Amino acid sequence: MDKGKPVTAIIRIQCPDQMGLISRVTDFIQRNNGNIVALDQYTDKLESHFFMRIEWELEGFALAKDQIAPAFQYAIATPCQMTWQLDFSDQRLRMAIMVSKMSHCLYDLLARYHGGELDVEIPIIIGNHEEMRNVADQFGIPFHLLKITKENKEEQERLQMKLMSDNQIDFIVLARYMQILSNDFIKAYPNRIINIHHSTLPAFVGAKPYHQAYARGVKLIGATSHYVTEDLDAGPIIEQDIIRVTHHDTPETMVQKGKDVEKIVLSRAVEAHIARKTLVFQNKTVIFN
Amino acid sequence: MDKGKPVTAIIRIQCPDQMGLISRVTDFIQRNNGNIVALDQYTDKLESHFFMRIEWELEGFALAKDQIAPAFQYAIATPCQMTWQLDFSDQRLRMAIMVSKMSHCLYDLLARYHGGELDVEIPIIIGNHEEMRNVADQFGIPFHLLKITKENKEEQERLQMKLMSDNQIDFIVLARYMQILSNDFIKAYPNRIINIHHSTLPAFVGAKPYHQAYARGVKLIGATSHYVTEDLDAGPIIEQDIIRVTHHDTPETMVQKGKDVEKIVLSRAVEAHIARKTLVFQNKTVIFN
Amino acid sequence: MDKGKPVTAIIRIQCPDQMGLISRVTDFIQRNNGNIVALDQYTDKLESHFFMRIEWELEGFALAKDQIAPAFQYAIATPCQMTWQLDFSDQRLRMAIMVSKMSHCLYDLLARYHGGELDVEIPIIIGNHEEMRNVADQFGIPFHLLKITKENKEEQERLQMKLMSDNQIDFIVLARYMQILSNDFIKAYPNRIINIHHSTLPAFVGAKPYHQAYARGVKLIGATSHYVTEDLDAGPIIEQDIIRVTHHDTPETMVQKGKDVEKIVLSRAVEAHIARKTLVFQNKTVIFN
Amino acid sequence: MDKGKPVTAIIRIQCPDQMGLISRVTDFIQRNNGNIVALDQYTDKLESHFFMRIEWELEGFALAKDQIAPAFQYAIATPCQMTWQLDFSDQRLRMAIMVSKMSHCLYDLLARYHGGELDVEIPIIIGNHEEMRNVADQFGIPFHLLKITKENKEEQERLQMKLMSDNQIDFIVLARYMQILSNDFIKAYPNRIINIHHSTLPAFVGAKPYHQAYARGVKLIGATSHYVTEDLDAGPIIEQDIIRVTHHDTPETMVQKGKDVEKIVLSRAVEAHIARKTLVFQNKTVIFN
Repeated sequence: MDKGKPVTAIIRIQCPDQMGLISRVTDFIQRNNGNIVALDQYTDKLESHFFMRIEWELEGFALAKDQIAPAFQYAIATPCQMTWQLDFSDQRLRMAIMVSKMSHCLYDLLARYHGGELDVEIPIIIGNHEEMRNVADQFGIPFHLLKITKENKEEQERLQMKLMSDNQIDFIVLARYMQILSNDFIKAYPNRIINIHHSTLPAFVGAKPYHQAYARGVKLIGATSHYVTEDLDAGPIIEQDIIRVTHHDTPETMVQKGKDVEKIVLSRAVEAHIARKTLVFQNKTVIFN
Repeated sequence: MDKGKPVTAIIRIQCPDQMGLISRVTDFIQRNNGNIVALDQYTDKLESHFFMRIEWELEGFALAKDQIAPAFQYAIATPCQMTWQLDFSDQRLRMAIMVSKMSHCLYDLLARYHGGELDVEIPIIIGNHEEMRNVADQFGIPFHLLKITKENKEEQERLQMKLMSDNQIDFIVLARYMQILSNDFIKAYPNRIINIHHSTLPAFVGAKPYHQAYARGVKLIGATSHYVTEDLDAGPIIEQDIIRVTHHDTPETMVQKGKDVEKIVLSRAVEAHIARKTLVFQNKTVIFN
Repeated sequence: MDKGKPVTAIIRIQCPDQMGLISRVTDFIQRNNGNIVALDQYTDKLESHFFMRIEWELEGFALAKDQIAPAFQYAIATPCQMTWQLDFSDQRLRMAIMVSKMSHCLYDLLARYHGGELDVEIPIIIGNHEEMRNVADQFGIPFHLLKITKENKEEQERLQMKLMSDNQIDFIVLARYMQILSNDFIKAYPNRIINIHHSTLPAFVGAKPYHQAYARGVKLIGATSHYVTEDLDAGPIIEQDIIRVTHHDTPETMVQKGKDVEKIVLSRAVEAHIARKTLVFQNKTVIFN
Repeated sequence: MDKGKPVTAIIRIQCPDQMGLISRVTDFIQRNNGNIVALDQYTDKLESHFFMRIEWELEGFALAKDQIAPAFQYAIATPCQMTWQLDFSDQRLRMAIMVSKMSHCLYDLLARYHGGELDVEIPIIIGNHEEMRNVADQFGIPFHLLKITKENKEEQERLQMKLMSDNQIDFIVLARYMQILSNDFIKAYPNRIINIHHSTLPAFVGAKPYHQAYARGVKLIGATSHYVTEDLDAGPIIEQDIIRVTHHDTPETMVQKGKDVEKIVLSRAVEAHIARKTLVFQNKTVIFN
């Protein structure tokens, strides 16, 4: 957290589209003397659904932090049938990272964290292999090894979830974690587990997408970060990007080139999540400015 | 113009930042029963300057077209010190194209026009060479040849400007027009002349940018569309894009590859201008959603 | 064709990898006093297969045009088990365009053709709808309407193929031709029919890919040009590119934005084909420099 | 270094263009029973200059490592007036990194190094500020602090150069090192100092390019990696890339977004240098496949 930055409140809203939404929300904040620092809204005309993100400075705001939610609920959210969420910028999210054997995404996240670019706490890193322990050690973050076999998967997931709750984890980043989470795990963190898949989904779902891409002879490879849902590689997409390949590329050079796209696409998704700029509606994301 | 589309009003605003702007504007429209179809706003915190574009359907709006401007001026624009502009989506802009000898940008504009993608009238094409007459003829648009020499430039510009005013031209597109316009001409069309420069400005200002790029050994070339101001190639940038080059490229292949970027970057700028999504402040553009 | 450019011979080769291939080929040309102007080669290590494209000036070459093929076959191709092809740069390919109702790809091709960028002949445009006749007329190219119904498809394809052979067509470009060609048609033009599909294949095969992309909530859309094979949208990929979309995009705006990518990706593929820079091996392309 | 990979020899060549160069070089290797694993060549037609990179496996090669250079010099390089260089893939380059206060480029390099992606030794990191010591410590690499003032610059550079020679440094990476090196330093490492500049050169040479970019209102920012020469930010460009910005971006968010491009562009340049795929001619680079 940038200490010089003023503390802000952020409300994210979705509701059926109706007249007067923007003026009602902005009016609520401005009547209470709030200085709006960001506002982005969007109406899905096909679904008649409204989305909004508004951020204002708490300094000088007429309502105390704990008064905002009840007041907003009463005055606006209830009459407008809003699904909404209030956050404060000084409330640092607690993020767990799950890894297997590859280091590029983990390093990219930890380098940003260490460089002050990610405004989160990272209390734990969980691996299903030993390999990433030394990276966690480099950054002084506790590493928990929980090897997964067909036999112990249920038990190990219970331990993973206990670690999450013991450490008050807000959201989880799968930094090339090569295990499929159970539905129970996924349901416990709705729209709060971010995965990176190494293809431009929906192309090349499942295992070894670069080998699939090589076999198909594509001229572009890419990566997709998305919220994890019970359908494999089918959750709401947060960010995607690509890189060019040619006939010179083998599956191995694609794996290598793809790493740069994977790590950037994952980190951008994590940054959007931390900044409370994402919203999910019908298996799609709205990404606010 | 898509005949099925409902007619809308569009207001673009800029003014000193102040409390309550968004709710005042949205309230004005909604109290008059306007259905907002697009809203985008932005505050330049460094300059404390506010920008907004709002679009709403005229059907059912409580004010007649000619009542909107005075009402808005009185109720909002004057008290808030706004610079603002009202447009209606059924008021087709009249666009002139100026060309020299190259056809790629001209064709791209005319192909979109003919395909119904550009909601404008194109009453005239003006060339300083004969070459593009046949392209104008293909699309049945009057072509005016006004050759420019050092001696006749002033006189020819007078004729150009007369053509503009006789044809009630709203804005002018320089589709690789290889002449520098005089300050008098430029002043007559402030933020209404769009040029395409074949480099990612501010790199390679002036003549033969691809030859400059080749000499410098760059790995990217690009194009910049901008509003023309009295400073050569220094006006507010609307859009930029690039394409990769390698050591295999010569100035000639760069010219060739660059054409694709030029035409797309120019057409995107023209589309943004037509959709009334651009605003100029301090030699920069705000491009609304 | 650029009249100033010297005439060249181009040989494209593929064969099992073996020692000495490059020096044998270059030696053949240089012993006969050929000035090599381009050489690109590539070895697929996984398949132990060798690919090469070599281009040299005919001026001063010791062998006459009609002597080159037998000499090369005897001295090199037969002993090395090569599949190969000889072309001359002054031998203009004859290209047919097939269209339905959309103009953007057709215009992009014809604008390049008219601007001297595509070194081909375009003797015919075939449409299964009337809409594109006026574009063909603008460029003075004969337009043949062959409407397709379930009942007459076989008969109409016979007429299409007769048109192709009457006009000595070398290759066919499907510029958003919305009909599936029969296997007999496809077999008659192996690796000589170029299609543009409006997605980054293999994502969104089949109909309405932008609607599929919208439903999936992707953040990128794209286009793929490929040689047509009997498997729908599964032929060797020549070129791909993408453009970003956001939650603001609807299927309609995706269709609109996608047009720019489609036309550029198709035209690049056509340019590579005309320059004899493509080679197909095992449902993939090698694209030479 | 991948231990499973066979050891290769790499020759990079430049010389005046002449007949028979490719067959002479490939013939030399193949007569000595060398299995060519990569070949890329290019002729600069405007300058009549020839460039080539050829890589072959040493296993089974008829010449011992120390016989290759004299044999090649005598048989080919001298008669063809070549400037050339021989390298072996098992000869690991020794790379020094120089830094100031920012960590993103340093982390990206060290993460690749630690992940086995960069086949180099990194014996030292030199900083002109204390800040990056802890990053060096995380990776167990000796960190040398040499603060620079106007008064001590000459003396400190002497110490820097002594560190380079004591550690047998082959090439130097300036990972956002915010000091200008003296000409003497630069001359000691011709085409062996790689810098990252945070703009798409030649735009925004010198200090604070993102602030310059903001002031100009560009829609793209980028980064350029180049070999350092005596002219500031004017050396041969190795790699460039860009990222989009909008009117929402401030100099601060540009700095932030730019970091991702800087680190990727720098690391790609370092990888090309390590793979001996770069060649400099007349202040430009040839980047081989």
